Amino acid sequence: MSHQETIRAPAGLETVSALLEPAAIAIVGASDKSRWSAVAFANLTQGGFKGRVHLVNPKGAIVHGRQAARSCVEVGDTIDIGLVMAPASAVVDVITDLADAGAKAAVVLTAGFAETGAAGKALQERLRQVCAERRVSLLGPNCLGFINFANRAYVWTTPVMAPSSSAGVAIVSQSGATAYFLSTLAYQQDVGLSHVVSTGNEVDLDVATFVEHLINDPHARSIAVFAETFRDPTHFLAAAARALRVGKPLVVLKMGASEVTAKSAIAHTGALVGDDRVFEGICQQFGIIRTRSMEELLATADVAGRTGTLRPGGLCVVTNSGGVGEIAADTAELRGIALPDLREGAAAALRAAIPDTATAHNPLDLTGSVSPGQCEAALRIIGAQDDYAAILCPWYEIPTAPEQTSERLSQLHHHLAQGLAAAPVPGFLVSYTNTTVNALAQSIIAETGANYLACGLDRALSALAGTMWWSRHRHALARRPASPLAGPEAIGERPRSEHAALDLLSRHGIPVVPATLATGPSEAIAAARAYGEPVVVKIASPDIAHKSDIGGVILNVLGDAAVSDAYTRVLAAARDRCPGAQVDGAIVAPMRGRGIELFVGCSRDPQWGTVLAVGLGGVWVEVLQDVALRLLPVDAGEVRRMLGSLRGAKLLAGQRGVPAADLDAVAGVIARLGDLILALGPELAELDVNPLWVRGSQVEALDALFVWRAAPQAPAPRH
Amino acid sequence: MSHQETIRAPAGLETVSALLEPAAIAIVGASDKSRWSAVAFANLTQGGFKGRVHLVNPKGAIVHGRQAARSCVEVGDTIDIGLVMAPASAVVDVITDLADAGAKAAVVLTAGFAETGAAGKALQERLRQVCAERRVSLLGPNCLGFINFANRAYVWTTPVMAPSSSAGVAIVSQSGATAYFLSTLAYQQDVGLSHVVSTGNEVDLDVATFVEHLINDPHARSIAVFAETFRDPTHFLAAAARALRVGKPLVVLKMGASEVTAKSAIAHTGALVGDDRVFEGICQQFGIIRTRSMEELLATADVAGRTGTLRPGGLCVVTNSGGVGEIAADTAELRGIALPDLREGAAAALRAAIPDTATAHNPLDLTGSVSPGQCEAALRIIGAQDDYAAILCPWYEIPTAPEQTSERLSQLHHHLAQGLAAAPVPGFLVSYTNTTVNALAQSIIAETGANYLACGLDRALSALAGTMWWSRHRHALARRPASPLAGPEAIGERPRSEHAALDLLSRHGIPVVPATLATGPSEAIAAARAYGEPVVVKIASPDIAHKSDIGGVILNVLGDAAVSDAYTRVLAAARDRCPGAQVDGAIVAPMRGRGIELFVGCSRDPQWGTVLAVGLGGVWVEVLQDVALRLLPVDAGEVRRMLGSLRGAKLLAGQRGVPAADLDAVAGVIARLGDLILALGPELAELDVNPLWVRGSQVEALDALFVWRAAPQAPAPRH
Repeated sequence: MSHQETIRAPAGLETVSALLEPAAIAIVGASDKSRWSAVAFANLTQGGFKGRVHLVNPKGAIVHGRQAARSCVEVGDTIDIGLVMAPASAVVDVITDLADAGAKAAVVLTAGFAETGAAGKALQERLRQVCAERRVSLLGPNCLGFINFANRAYVWTTPVMAPSSSAGVAIVSQSGATAYFLSTLAYQQDVGLSHVVSTGNEVDLDVATFVEHLINDPHARSIAVFAETFRDPTHFLAAAARALRVGKPLVVLKMGASEVTAKSAIAHTGALVGDDRVFEGICQQFGIIRTRSMEELLATADVAGRTGTLRPGGLCVVTNSGGVGEIAADTAELRGIALPDLREGAAAALRAAIPDTATAHNPLDLTGSVSPGQCEAALRIIGAQDDYAAILCPWYEIPTAPEQTSERLSQLHHHLAQGLAAAPVPGFLVSYTNTTVNALAQSIIAETGANYLACGLDRALSALAGTMWWSRHRHALARRPASPLAGPEAIGERPRSEHAALDLLSRHGIPVVPATLATGPSEAIAAARAYGEPVVVKIASPDIAHKSDIGGVILNVLGDAAVSDAYTRVLAAARDRCPGAQVDGAIVAPMRGRGIELFVGCSRDPQWGTVLAVGLGGVWVEVLQDVALRLLPVDAGEVRRMLGSLRGAKLLAGQRGVPAADLDAVAGVIARLGDLILALGPELAELDVNPLWVRGSQVEALDALFVWRAAPQAPAPRH
Repeated sequence: MSHQETIRAPAGLETVSALLEPAAIAIVGASDKSRWSAVAFANLTQGGFKGRVHLVNPKGAIVHGRQAARSCVEVGDTIDIGLVMAPASAVVDVITDLADAGAKAAVVLTAGFAETGAAGKALQERLRQVCAERRVSLLGPNCLGFINFANRAYVWTTPVMAPSSSAGVAIVSQSGATAYFLSTLAYQQDVGLSHVVSTGNEVDLDVATFVEHLINDPHARSIAVFAETFRDPTHFLAAAARALRVGKPLVVLKMGASEVTAKSAIAHTGALVGDDRVFEGICQQFGIIRTRSMEELLATADVAGRTGTLRPGGLCVVTNSGGVGEIAADTAELRGIALPDLREGAAAALRAAIPDTATAHNPLDLTGSVSPGQCEAALRIIGAQDDYAAILCPWYEIPTAPEQTSERLSQLHHHLAQGLAAAPVPGFLVSYTNTTVNALAQSIIAETGANYLACGLDRALSALAGTMWWSRHRHALARRPASPLAGPEAIGERPRSEHAALDLLSRHGIPVVPATLATGPSEAIAAARAYGEPVVVKIASPDIAHKSDIGGVILNVLGDAAVSDAYTRVLAAARDRCPGAQVDGAIVAPMRGRGIELFVGCSRDPQWGTVLAVGLGGVWVEVLQDVALRLLPVDAGEVRRMLGSLRGAKLLAGQRGVPAADLDAVAGVIARLGDLILALGPELAELDVNPLWVRGSQVEALDALFVWRAAPQAPAPRH
């Protein structure tokens, strides 16, 4: 069932607040026999939650040492939210009972809904209806609940390990297990967490709703999302755009890149998995930081949340090992992080401050013989440079066992922390490789004030690369005009032939090659004479999409006899190879010389909407799939970024005999084409402009193919 | 100084044995004031080493509570090796003293040699000479020593944390600090280690020597190398080839990919850093598993060492979380690991054995409600399938704290371990994300017999991808003929012109396009008539390398007048644009139609030797640098692998109007060309065959350019 078919009241942000900040919670289906019940009860009563906790069990027995009520209504208190672990068949009745007791929201752990097949789907739909009717917001079903670390509402069914800070990453995950694994990793590395939310089957509250809410929550410094699909893409993209605008990093681990995954996602949550490359384009467009593993997701959200928007500039790496400095330099290059070298002034100042055996450049290897004071002095010099957006110190990890501590190490960590803190840009102390933080390490961190990453150098560099990329997006955003594009007016034309297609483009501001539709050899000759240069002769038929393949295109035709012959040949080819096709004649157009040939197209993604594709033509598209994708609309600036991201981008700078493309001119034409595509509406299934020919500032569509889908029919009336 | 200039006795394997298995060790320069001395003494006296340990200090004082001798000779015992931490200026004398005391080897920690500049270089050269004269093998200088875990010879200057097994990864690192960080990570994740060797400045014993030695050591299940450069490339490659042949995985983290690194490597060890892309080709060729971070290096060496050569097949992933299954599937696809789906028989058997809510496919999500017994049953069914080379179970990590343990978790781990152990292929239990192993976890591992990886799913998949790639190399090796290529005989010709170059190629079995050197218009006309088809007319000049750029090539010329005109025009172009160039006339050759155009070239890498480059011509080389590199010699099988690795490899299967390339024919021609390049000797600086034109099984060099360097001159006699 696609999101369009689901009719539901959009969850207001107040609802999410009510869910995440309850004063009274009922555990419905509480039972001594259930692990989940016992853990959830312990989480709420021993985790520091200040609100009221009630137990409900239809038998009304003593549960977890307390008298349970037989229903929510029987509790006799206003219940804000219910944590529901009743059997699937009972959940609908539980919602009614909760609503009667005044509950605004329910968290349904119970599985056995849409993820299990047709009967489960029907049950889920019934659940959705009851929630809508009774105005109960629903988290789940088939989820593990949520954790709000700020108010210690651990509405969660596995043991909760709280990191030392409740300001940090907010985890929002469709998979409850993955949310749990991420929070375990955060605990082990002492990454601050504000929330953990498991959204399960998302009958009502989905990932987008929580992202939107968390943008406003000051505890959530960044948002880490694990998702298989986005059930309300429009809502998600609006939230993503807002997150970028206000500067809250949105970091995503989205599955669905592999065919295998597409299969298991269906089995797992009944989710649609869209084209991974479309999502990649969306991340580029909306400044969503995409990651590829749980570790990278957490480290990136952690780093971006701590730094916020970085100023423009590169990274300075300061370490005590030449080998590690080299690893840092190589890895930074692989991830697109610049390590600008020290300017002469800074280098000279450093030479006076660091050991003789150290060389003053970036990465800076202070060597094993550096003193703690020299570390701080070096960092103070580097911090004063304008070239760096951040500083990274891969160094001995903060000890987790007393035998690892020493006076020298403690001094080193102290002075490194001081030196980093003095810089006006973010600076991190990072372990060489991934490690953990325990109570001893926490006390050292508190004492030294170290801004410490236990994820190790490699993950820290991924995280910084993501953060720097995101920061560039934000700087670009600030430079862009704030006013949105004027929505183009709808266009009702439905051209089917190439000639009509080029004509439509031309009338809407897209430059096209001049072309004449000839219906006989003499018309073809007249057209060619009028152009006065070699022409191309192409079969004109709305039924023949791939003209070259059937011999329907003859290039470089000059002279009356040759033109007449070409006309006859392309018509004969059509007759022989496509006997049933409607043939309108032949198109005669002037030959264009060497130029850069682009491919511009659009298609409709069933999940995300109209996707614009821009690439280099020919083998670049066919062999390398070297295409940039974006959702429409796009402005010319975004088109320039698309062009710049192509692997063959270098070709745009010109080759032998082909002048460089005027990128502003090209981007302007493509952006206009995007507007036109939107104006043509959803009946346009596909468009190929191939090639869009470019020579300097001359830009022309040489061929265009529109594919229309039948207009949507009104549903047949039921009798 | 390049390796060729260094004259030294190659270190025999006996020397390395003597070093790694000493009976008596002297710490020379032992002092209570030195951290290094204290730690090294503690490592040797408290770490379980069974040999004798002596202290030497020129003052002969009480050191570390023992009487130190004033010299090695004064010790009065035969000393096998010396651990030298004397000042740089004293090291040469220490070597003499050690030699006098019977030592076969010295480990020199002292820094201040070639890495510090000219004076240090001179001192290092003196050290080298003394070692050679006195037949003392040298590890270092500027190193941290070595550890042999099997005999507990901890000749090492930082605290040693021994993993629970001394069978496992052997670490060989040019950077002592990096060796230490890797061994710390191994300890934290309980990865078995056999050796840790830090080679420092490699005056004598280098990485290649240790790799060669460790291939024979049964404790070393795999070899993990961290290197900046290889001082004796030939030796290293011979060792790598042998490691592949006998099936010992060689895993490398080599720095030098970035320009920044190239700079710091010079500062760090005075090492030459070769072209990273050449090294990439070498890894492909020699089956060296290349990694990109310290974590990946260790995890890959660990996994490959534990599995050995995997049988052909894909991976089966069995987990208890749908989300993690999806992550595994996506990551596997990114890393080129196949996850073949279950065959119907296995799926049916599984459906009867696993929970109703689980779906029988790969990755297999057994769900949170699976029982321990069902886990084992599922693994036994999967283990019986022929499609899988390995099984991976991302699952709850093995507890490191008592509060994490539970009867259920213990049962799960037990049955998972049993199920994995029953399979005839390697199977691993892996933590979802990176974590650690402590004494509690070790006891659980021992109890359950779990084959456990604490590196986390993401690193485990990298490691398996590397191991599967390496295993494919080994299977391919088994299929190849054992006899090496016959060394081609030296060829003394030095063609400078295109015409002579094509002629040379032709006489040595490389098919070339027919071509005639015309010295006047009438000769050109005669040649064109003889071909009887359109021709290309090209300027013939040994001084003009890029003929097209100056208008020196005219394509598709037909008819006497046109040929005569073309001849005149290319000569005029040469006269106008290259006034000083020697002009021999023009080459007339038949035009070749559409085909696949390859680029084949060679160049000489200052470190590695003669490198063959194969790519697709035109923009593929110019814009994408889509070239595969290998050291010569190569056989046709290797050339086919080069072709297959190109990003544009799809083009070889043919395009519209261009038939597929006969890959055996192409590979045969390129391999012959490689042999010819070797036969032409080191005076050949560069060769471009561009294009090598292919149409089906027709393969022809259309153009060839040889670049010669001056013959090496005999050194001028000294007077």
